[in-house]
Amino acid sequence: MKKVQLNPVGWMSQLSQVEVAKLEDTTNSALYDMFRNCCLAVLNSGVDEDNYEILFAPYDDFDVKLVRRERGVKIELINPPEVAFVDGKLVRGVHEHLFAVLRDLLYMGNKYAFVHKSAPLDGINISDMVFDMLRHAQALEGNDNLNTIVCWGGHSIKQHEYKYTKEVGYQMGLRKLNICTGCGPGAMKGPMKGAAIGHAKQRYKEGRYIGISEPSIIAAEPPNAIVNELVIMPDIEKRLEAFVRIAHGIIIFPGGVGTAEELLYLLGILMNEKNAQQPFPVILTGPAGSEAYFAAIDDFVAATLGKKAQSKYQIIIDNPTEVARSMRAGLDKVEEYRRAMGDAFSYNWSLKIDEAFQHPFVPTHESMGALALHRDQPVADLAVVLRKAFSGIVAGNVKAEGIRQIKQHGPFKLTGEAELMERIDNMLQSFVAQQRMKLPGSEYEPCYTIRQGD
Amino acid sequence: MKKVQLNPVGWMSQLSQVEVAKLEDTTNSALYDMFRNCCLAVLNSGVDEDNYEILFAPYDDFDVKLVRRERGVKIELINPPEVAFVDGKLVRGVHEHLFAVLRDLLYMGNKYAFVHKSAPLDGINISDMVFDMLRHAQALEGNDNLNTIVCWGGHSIKQHEYKYTKEVGYQMGLRKLNICTGCGPGAMKGPMKGAAIGHAKQRYKEGRYIGISEPSIIAAEPPNAIVNELVIMPDIEKRLEAFVRIAHGIIIFPGGVGTAEELLYLLGILMNEKNAQQPFPVILTGPAGSEAYFAAIDDFVAATLGKKAQSKYQIIIDNPTEVARSMRAGLDKVEEYRRAMGDAFSYNWSLKIDEAFQHPFVPTHESMGALALHRDQPVADLAVVLRKAFSGIVAGNVKAEGIRQIKQHGPFKLTGEAELMERIDNMLQSFVAQQRMKLPGSEYEPCYTIRQGD
Amino acid sequence: MKKVQLNPVGWMSQLSQVEVAKLEDTTNSALYDMFRNCCLAVLNSGVDEDNYEILFAPYDDFDVKLVRRERGVKIELINPPEVAFVDGKLVRGVHEHLFAVLRDLLYMGNKYAFVHKSAPLDGINISDMVFDMLRHAQALEGNDNLNTIVCWGGHSIKQHEYKYTKEVGYQMGLRKLNICTGCGPGAMKGPMKGAAIGHAKQRYKEGRYIGISEPSIIAAEPPNAIVNELVIMPDIEKRLEAFVRIAHGIIIFPGGVGTAEELLYLLGILMNEKNAQQPFPVILTGPAGSEAYFAAIDDFVAATLGKKAQSKYQIIIDNPTEVARSMRAGLDKVEEYRRAMGDAFSYNWSLKIDEAFQHPFVPTHESMGALALHRDQPVADLAVVLRKAFSGIVAGNVKAEGIRQIKQHGPFKLTGEAELMERIDNMLQSFVAQQRMKLPGSEYEPCYTIRQGD
Amino acid sequence: MKKVQLNPVGWMSQLSQVEVAKLEDTTNSALYDMFRNCCLAVLNSGVDEDNYEILFAPYDDFDVKLVRRERGVKIELINPPEVAFVDGKLVRGVHEHLFAVLRDLLYMGNKYAFVHKSAPLDGINISDMVFDMLRHAQALEGNDNLNTIVCWGGHSIKQHEYKYTKEVGYQMGLRKLNICTGCGPGAMKGPMKGAAIGHAKQRYKEGRYIGISEPSIIAAEPPNAIVNELVIMPDIEKRLEAFVRIAHGIIIFPGGVGTAEELLYLLGILMNEKNAQQPFPVILTGPAGSEAYFAAIDDFVAATLGKKAQSKYQIIIDNPTEVARSMRAGLDKVEEYRRAMGDAFSYNWSLKIDEAFQHPFVPTHESMGALALHRDQPVADLAVVLRKAFSGIVAGNVKAEGIRQIKQHGPFKLTGEAELMERIDNMLQSFVAQQRMKLPGSEYEPCYTIRQGD
Repeated sequence: MKKVQLNPVGWMSQLSQVEVAKLEDTTNSALYDMFRNCCLAVLNSGVDEDNYEILFAPYDDFDVKLVRRERGVKIELINPPEVAFVDGKLVRGVHEHLFAVLRDLLYMGNKYAFVHKSAPLDGINISDMVFDMLRHAQALEGNDNLNTIVCWGGHSIKQHEYKYTKEVGYQMGLRKLNICTGCGPGAMKGPMKGAAIGHAKQRYKEGRYIGISEPSIIAAEPPNAIVNELVIMPDIEKRLEAFVRIAHGIIIFPGGVGTAEELLYLLGILMNEKNAQQPFPVILTGPAGSEAYFAAIDDFVAATLGKKAQSKYQIIIDNPTEVARSMRAGLDKVEEYRRAMGDAFSYNWSLKIDEAFQHPFVPTHESMGALALHRDQPVADLAVVLRKAFSGIVAGNVKAEGIRQIKQHGPFKLTGEAELMERIDNMLQSFVAQQRMKLPGSEYEPCYTIRQGD
Repeated sequence: MKKVQLNPVGWMSQLSQVEVAKLEDTTNSALYDMFRNCCLAVLNSGVDEDNYEILFAPYDDFDVKLVRRERGVKIELINPPEVAFVDGKLVRGVHEHLFAVLRDLLYMGNKYAFVHKSAPLDGINISDMVFDMLRHAQALEGNDNLNTIVCWGGHSIKQHEYKYTKEVGYQMGLRKLNICTGCGPGAMKGPMKGAAIGHAKQRYKEGRYIGISEPSIIAAEPPNAIVNELVIMPDIEKRLEAFVRIAHGIIIFPGGVGTAEELLYLLGILMNEKNAQQPFPVILTGPAGSEAYFAAIDDFVAATLGKKAQSKYQIIIDNPTEVARSMRAGLDKVEEYRRAMGDAFSYNWSLKIDEAFQHPFVPTHESMGALALHRDQPVADLAVVLRKAFSGIVAGNVKAEGIRQIKQHGPFKLTGEAELMERIDNMLQSFVAQQRMKLPGSEYEPCYTIRQGD
Repeated sequence: MKKVQLNPVGWMSQLSQVEVAKLEDTTNSALYDMFRNCCLAVLNSGVDEDNYEILFAPYDDFDVKLVRRERGVKIELINPPEVAFVDGKLVRGVHEHLFAVLRDLLYMGNKYAFVHKSAPLDGINISDMVFDMLRHAQALEGNDNLNTIVCWGGHSIKQHEYKYTKEVGYQMGLRKLNICTGCGPGAMKGPMKGAAIGHAKQRYKEGRYIGISEPSIIAAEPPNAIVNELVIMPDIEKRLEAFVRIAHGIIIFPGGVGTAEELLYLLGILMNEKNAQQPFPVILTGPAGSEAYFAAIDDFVAATLGKKAQSKYQIIIDNPTEVARSMRAGLDKVEEYRRAMGDAFSYNWSLKIDEAFQHPFVPTHESMGALALHRDQPVADLAVVLRKAFSGIVAGNVKAEGIRQIKQHGPFKLTGEAELMERIDNMLQSFVAQQRMKLPGSEYEPCYTIRQGD
Repeated sequence: MKKVQLNPVGWMSQLSQVEVAKLEDTTNSALYDMFRNCCLAVLNSGVDEDNYEILFAPYDDFDVKLVRRERGVKIELINPPEVAFVDGKLVRGVHEHLFAVLRDLLYMGNKYAFVHKSAPLDGINISDMVFDMLRHAQALEGNDNLNTIVCWGGHSIKQHEYKYTKEVGYQMGLRKLNICTGCGPGAMKGPMKGAAIGHAKQRYKEGRYIGISEPSIIAAEPPNAIVNELVIMPDIEKRLEAFVRIAHGIIIFPGGVGTAEELLYLLGILMNEKNAQQPFPVILTGPAGSEAYFAAIDDFVAATLGKKAQSKYQIIIDNPTEVARSMRAGLDKVEEYRRAMGDAFSYNWSLKIDEAFQHPFVPTHESMGALALHRDQPVADLAVVLRKAFSGIVAGNVKAEGIRQIKQHGPFKLTGEAELMERIDNMLQSFVAQQRMKLPGSEYEPCYTIRQGD
């Protein structure tokens, strides 16, 4: 049995004895399994595999323990994957990521658990908690240069698309923009890789490659090799809020249903009247050949959320330089606005996020079946509902809990207005056809059925 | 009316909106007056005056406000003392100190207020709170080189004694030791000043000059010009705990009753059986001519706490080099011990402090009169009682609340065992005679009377 | 006409007025054309093209001037290539490289020109000059961690070979080794790219990617995008000396005739009796499929320089981890030896280099024809001769002056001992067959003929 | 016999073997004695003694050697003074100063010796050499913030004057100005000490305390404890040039004949027509009670160099804040001018210094006697002559060679125009009366006689 003990780093290196005792108490909690799994995912960092069962299979005998010392807490790894070690020593980046997992899952989990249970957080408190987690992750300290670009897009994209994300990243890196993504491969890795080269050419030493993940997906999308800051938000809603509040601009590459969820979330927020004045650069972009993809998305938005939603983004095809230039220009307006409002540069406090977007949606057969999928409601409400529908499908595709449910009860059943359902169906079918649901090589088995209501 | 707004620094520059709202709420609390006064004291930093009424007199129209911005909180000064400004700009060190006051008094005050009231903290939680406050003050981060020497001694000392404290500081600075004191003039300033020169000669750039104060005394002993880290603990008990847990060694210079309180507190703790193995270098030192002073102290300890207490310190007269060398040698043992125990280098968790030393003693005529001043009890208990007696006298001398009580009800009345009372009386008389009670120039009016019991 | 003025950086930012005046004087010298061309090459950094005529063709109207200011010297670019600019601003890395060109070509060129002409430098003075140039390039400052690995190999290699060089670089990066190469694409770029990822994962911030070039080849092999330190040595002999003196270990990937030149140079030196005790890790490595290539090289060495030469390197096939581990192990011995000898960590003074290897060999039809290509001489002498033969062929392939001569007078004619000539011919033929002579896509026209003597 | 070997630092840590060999050769040169003495002076850093004979007396058995290693050069101290060591280890600052002595005396001495002898340097080459020495001392790198204030004044000043220099230094430190002086005690130490406190209060970490000395005076005025950069110029003329070219402003405190020399040198230069446009803040300042002193100086200037010379400085009495504020204001004009001229911020190239001020004046009985001390010549020439006269007296007072001559041949004899001689005599007499010639406690024996010519 191989054992490795790790000294704490970052915030975890300065814990009080009461805090350490509380951490130890979590060892028997439900959180702990999640902690173990996230650690295992992080240790597999850089391995390309989005099926967590295959990923975890060889490591049945892996375990992780907290070791209490007078001076604080250590992590002990038992039978960890060899891939994370160099000549017997854990790679430093992985070491840091493990303590990020400890920090976000157990330490912050502890901090908010009590409040959570007795009385669910309301909107302002959720935003506060997101802030607090990013602050503890020291993700805000370097975030006041208005240069953090969140990149969304599929983890399973084609080679020429991946190359394109690298080129966009390179052009952004040349302009000293930093990259924040969801942590995994594909469109979440390409921009970081490109930016790293751009940063190097500009001798820019403060390059940040932030990965914001969540426990239920980190196994499917472990942090890629470039991520130098890892944050794990408790659920997809807080993760999305972290993205939009830390971002100074957002780029959306081709992707699957997760990317669609992200776009709908973003549009739903930007369409809020209270955000009408807020400049927020959003660019949809892909290589030559992606025109049809974005046209389909754009059509779907037009047909569901309408023209106003369309005005919130621009589409640029096959022009990395133009994407980066356009983003830089957009950032100037962001700076102007934040100065005028007295808002923080590092965290977008003034962005209004409706509570409907903040409260966790737990996809079950029941909750998915109950979604009000029709256009006979305000577009803001429709955006919320659509976001949830796509969120549920992501869960059914790659999140452990979702997969378990699908295995047990069969696909989720979505029902609603005929035309809307057809549009949804078409878009999802096209994602399947384009192999955007899973990493290439695996056959996609849909986790949903779509039925047009009356 | 002159107004100056200050941007937040350090921990205060990253507050959530809920935290800012809570800070604002304190504006009407009892804490707020204290906050204003501490700010005023910090703004008078470097001015030699230990009578807070004289110090504050010219600044009746001074006020301080918290200004809420989307991005956080600003401090607004109204009619601040000119002395803190250079060409219209606040001195950076003072700027930082003001936000240290905000952090420790209002932000941390808030955090612990609720717990405090509903259920007073027990021992482990007090140690945790002390840790938490030092952590937020970022005082622990640089504290793991085992080179923080706490220096105690009078704020009112003679010129040749002051010069001696500088020489000891210089020798410590040459050995890359950092200095932590109680913030004010005299023996609290000299070692810092000397160390700064020693550090410069050794090209040591990380020189730390930590001042740990408390709200009720900071007006009488505002941070001297060298202090580059300021922490304000809520009361003397937590301040003393901060001193002994952050210290890697302690030097005691000639001083008055406050110094005696500190020594008794320290000896009371070191005599605890659970600390028997703990190496803790304590050196009493002064220039030629101070022999009698230390002999008197040593006698008093012998007569009250006994031989074992005497073994906890060494006395070195007129030999700065020897003091520094001896301290360095002691630190080697500290390192050995902490490694063996797995204790933190930055915070002495394993030092056992009995709760009797942790709970606040509020000196009133009643509580002072009720002190069990006799030797017919375990020395540990006697140390507690003596510490409280001296603590009360310090309050009567320089703390606003104490002075108010004395003005209203006359001197505190101490009663007890005849021989013990005589010894106490002798020691206090000698402090008076040596002008160690107040800064030279002011006449000392005793705030206590001593009556021998039967 | 587009003009861009650049402020000096590095050593060039602190010139005296006399030095500036001397620089100005060079504007009319023969050096100046070379300076202009090197600048143009650097501005094309990252462009994949090894034919300097094609590379330079579009930039006939490009020029570069030195502008004298009271405070020093500026570079003025006239009609520079767009590729080096981002939104109108020169990429920082290219900016630095341009001043490296100015420093090495004109400033250092000036410094040594006088000495050079009146009396050619002898051995110790050549080593001193190489040292002085690396010192001015600030390449020695960070070089005392014994972790600089020089990588040699072809600029024109196959895709799977290139991928392999990246993997070896990655494994070295994970072990905090830095990379030094000849600056161009292929095996000179791959290890840097891989190491950059490895460094990032280990949070190693001091990653060095040193390119050492020479004026006559920089156009064919401009610095790739990763190079963050550029040094331009005056000729191939000083460049090779810079490589072996700055290196703590050397890795040789598959390559063409240039790589063969480098290997022969290195072996010739290591076989010197005075270097017998000197540990110097040399690893020849390539991916699966490269066995035959290295076997051919190894055979050639055996047949020419003999067993002892073979003992100076090890061959590792298709095992990047083993390469990196083996190198790390070798470095421990290097450290031991340098400590024992009191030699510098940053520059290998104690390595004995025979003058025969130091004096410039100028390839002409005459000098190439006169090479004593037979084995009836000491192996050390044979190594010198073979090195020169290959050096001449490199010149004929990619160096402007060499190409000009071949155009004018036809191929160089090599004559010598029959068996040796056959071996040479076979090896060169295999390089041609494997397309190692030029970047793929261009047809290779041999610049030499081989005739077996009697 | 105690021996200590020191590893090289700064520029001296990267020497080529040829350079090391040349250094070794100096061991037998005339320079070497000077080197030994400067080392001894530096080792006595902080000791207050201006009589080099008394200072050196206890160290007859002290010696210093250069030890050659493959990797460079070490300094070996034999029987060094204990005062420079802490627990057996040389104080880091002294260590650095020793290598500054090696650099400036032997390394740079070597570099310029040859040129010097064959053909004395002309003006532009002298300025270049001064630049080169400051560059090698890395004194120019941090000098482009336009905040280096040169402070001149006596090494032997009264206590209240010393306190005043500290206060001026403090006010300058609060404004982030750096200090450059001649290295010794008194007015050369006070401003540094004060500035260090001011820098600390402003959390200014880049505080520079530059000492520029010369071999013949460093024994009498060894670097004080604050000096963190030491440069030793070969003679007083190059030292003065270093002062005025590195300075962004100059403050003159009360002093003796050396200070008068400095003032005359400065005025002579500033009166040059070519410097008419050059803003150069010069402030003469002292505490209350110094009015008469400055009035005398001012009178002397008026009577000798005239009104125009007077317009080049302002006199401020007893107002440290005003001095610092006024200096800051002056620096704004300096910035404006340097930008307009394209001159370097770190070195005042555009200041015209007439060769008459650059060539060394060697005071002997003959050269002193031959000085044309009359006002029947252009004021520029008179300034040159007066500067030389005072320079000679300084030599006779504190420089070894000067003292030796006086001992042998009696006082220097100055002859000239009656009124001028009387004015000189009066001023010198007042310096003697005010004990500005030597450190207090020693009786001053004039090294000159003044005779009025016909």
